[in-house]
Amino acid sequence: MAKILILGAGVMGTAISFPLTDNGHIVHLVGTHLDGDIISKLQAGYPHPGLRLKVAESLKPYTHDKLAEAIEGVDLVVLGVNSHGIEWVAQALSSVLSPEIPILAVTKGLAGDGEKLSILPDVLRAGLPVKYQKDVQIAAIGGPSIAQELAARRHTCVVFTGTNQALLDKLAGLLRTNYYHVWTSTDMIGVEVCVALKNVYALAVGLVIGFLEKEGKAANGADMHNLAAAIFAQGMQETAYLVEKMGGKSHSVYSLPGTGDLYVTCQGGRNSRMGRLLGLDMLYSQAKAEYMPNDTIEGASLALAIGETVEAMVKRGDLDGEALPLLRTMIAIVCDDAPANIPWDKFFANAAKEFR
Amino acid sequence: MAKILILGAGVMGTAISFPLTDNGHIVHLVGTHLDGDIISKLQAGYPHPGLRLKVAESLKPYTHDKLAEAIEGVDLVVLGVNSHGIEWVAQALSSVLSPEIPILAVTKGLAGDGEKLSILPDVLRAGLPVKYQKDVQIAAIGGPSIAQELAARRHTCVVFTGTNQALLDKLAGLLRTNYYHVWTSTDMIGVEVCVALKNVYALAVGLVIGFLEKEGKAANGADMHNLAAAIFAQGMQETAYLVEKMGGKSHSVYSLPGTGDLYVTCQGGRNSRMGRLLGLDMLYSQAKAEYMPNDTIEGASLALAIGETVEAMVKRGDLDGEALPLLRTMIAIVCDDAPANIPWDKFFANAAKEFR
Repeated sequence: MAKILILGAGVMGTAISFPLTDNGHIVHLVGTHLDGDIISKLQAGYPHPGLRLKVAESLKPYTHDKLAEAIEGVDLVVLGVNSHGIEWVAQALSSVLSPEIPILAVTKGLAGDGEKLSILPDVLRAGLPVKYQKDVQIAAIGGPSIAQELAARRHTCVVFTGTNQALLDKLAGLLRTNYYHVWTSTDMIGVEVCVALKNVYALAVGLVIGFLEKEGKAANGADMHNLAAAIFAQGMQETAYLVEKMGGKSHSVYSLPGTGDLYVTCQGGRNSRMGRLLGLDMLYSQAKAEYMPNDTIEGASLALAIGETVEAMVKRGDLDGEALPLLRTMIAIVCDDAPANIPWDKFFANAAKEFR
Repeated sequence: MAKILILGAGVMGTAISFPLTDNGHIVHLVGTHLDGDIISKLQAGYPHPGLRLKVAESLKPYTHDKLAEAIEGVDLVVLGVNSHGIEWVAQALSSVLSPEIPILAVTKGLAGDGEKLSILPDVLRAGLPVKYQKDVQIAAIGGPSIAQELAARRHTCVVFTGTNQALLDKLAGLLRTNYYHVWTSTDMIGVEVCVALKNVYALAVGLVIGFLEKEGKAANGADMHNLAAAIFAQGMQETAYLVEKMGGKSHSVYSLPGTGDLYVTCQGGRNSRMGRLLGLDMLYSQAKAEYMPNDTIEGASLALAIGETVEAMVKRGDLDGEALPLLRTMIAIVCDDAPANIPWDKFFANAAKEFR
């Protein structure tokens, strides 16, 4: 039996508590400064509002100001915040974390500093006090995992990734159940690049929902699945390019972190909802302000986080712009309010090169 | 302007006529011995029953007994039959084909002879008279292409594959339109293995439709997308293994032929319908006989075509059985009426090996 702190009481952070409490571990769930309402509800014994399920009775919910108390004696910290919360988390943990407590991050994203792209575990590490940076062990979770399904104990397959195989085996042992199937991978770059990029490519696949709504079904009843599938494939191909470029393995691309996670993300959610609005010819800034002002749209967040850096890297020749036409189109749509036009001529260009 | 014969008047064979006639080519559409009704309808000016659209007025429909007349002077033969028709086609063409006429096959499948697996273009070649086998050029089409959408002139992205780049460029030039986007690839093995296997893996993803119907939504409304995505990813991973094993390139896996075509095939169709029945605990032989006696289910056809050979190759050590748990499960379901159980312990085993 272990004692585990989960930081972030949104749907994903809280869903992770289900395999943990099912395995008999003690779980302390600490909300962020934005999770006050959720923690109040859980403390009063109500279901989690996003998961629509009660957490285990053994779980202890804490507000963020009680972090120091909640973290006492824990064996593991799980990060369940979204990509915007990672800097807050680094700061919050700085005064209370011991370097021997490993961190398991559910958060997905990439960061750009104008010069290069970084995976989120590295951003987190850089945000911690210098004395921890070398010693703290950070692992991460990737793979297709809709939180509501995990919390309902429906079969979910994920990969735990990190550089220390012994730690990964230990973490997998803590969380594995007969519905939460955990594999491990030391290809941290590959996994993290895949799971971050899937959000922006799911946003791209979502465009087709809007295109179809705008044009309607064809006279013979035909939809636009061919187009959605082509965008899906272009997304995977660009993911493979960036994974390789950043030093990851292509194997992560055609397994759970890449193709599995993009598939599940295209089944609905906020990226798809925003994609639809963009496909209906709405500009990003307008769609965000009018229809989704309070939602975090991870695909758009990623475009904003790395857009400038990607373009700078293309300009310097560090990235091949021809290999990333869809990513660059999505960056233009989100960062510059460009219209949602598919760059047909530029698609699969890299494929043609590689194929020959 | 070229003169082109399409052999097979089903939905896919006929759909290919749309970009061809839009480009001003003369198209002769020859039905197989099973397409008599369709050809009669087209000759009478009615819409194609499966596509629910009229073909171009310039298109000439022929019954199969008129093949010798229809093939006279053509520059290209397009094969639009399904995998069961390939031997019939080889025989039918044997007496009328000139070896300088190239063949472009839409047909997808693999064959097993107990010893090894072969891609369909090689099966076709072997079925032609010996005097043609060396000289006739065979190319093929792969990628996400629902026939009804192509015929409705909705954006469709495909790869033409073959060993002769000049021929591929010429064929792409004949068929390319502003809605039919054609790339080329000389990785014929990779493309053909991907587009054949996608049928059996779409059948596997389809199981989840039945699982969900059987168990219903969870108390919190959760579906089973995580499970479907994991099966999708396992399918892609096994595809990558077989592509590499047969001498193809992994690049085809994470592009249009692999991930794109599997994605579109999971959006519905006969593989999904059969998958649902199997997921509802019906045995394959019963489901086929009672509910889909007259349907070709390509995923099941593939399992039947290669099942024995795959198992023999695993037994001999020519294939790693641990790398193909899902394919072998689907073979057991289709060939031996095994129940539809997911082999969780065996999933992603190869990934773990490769990742480390």
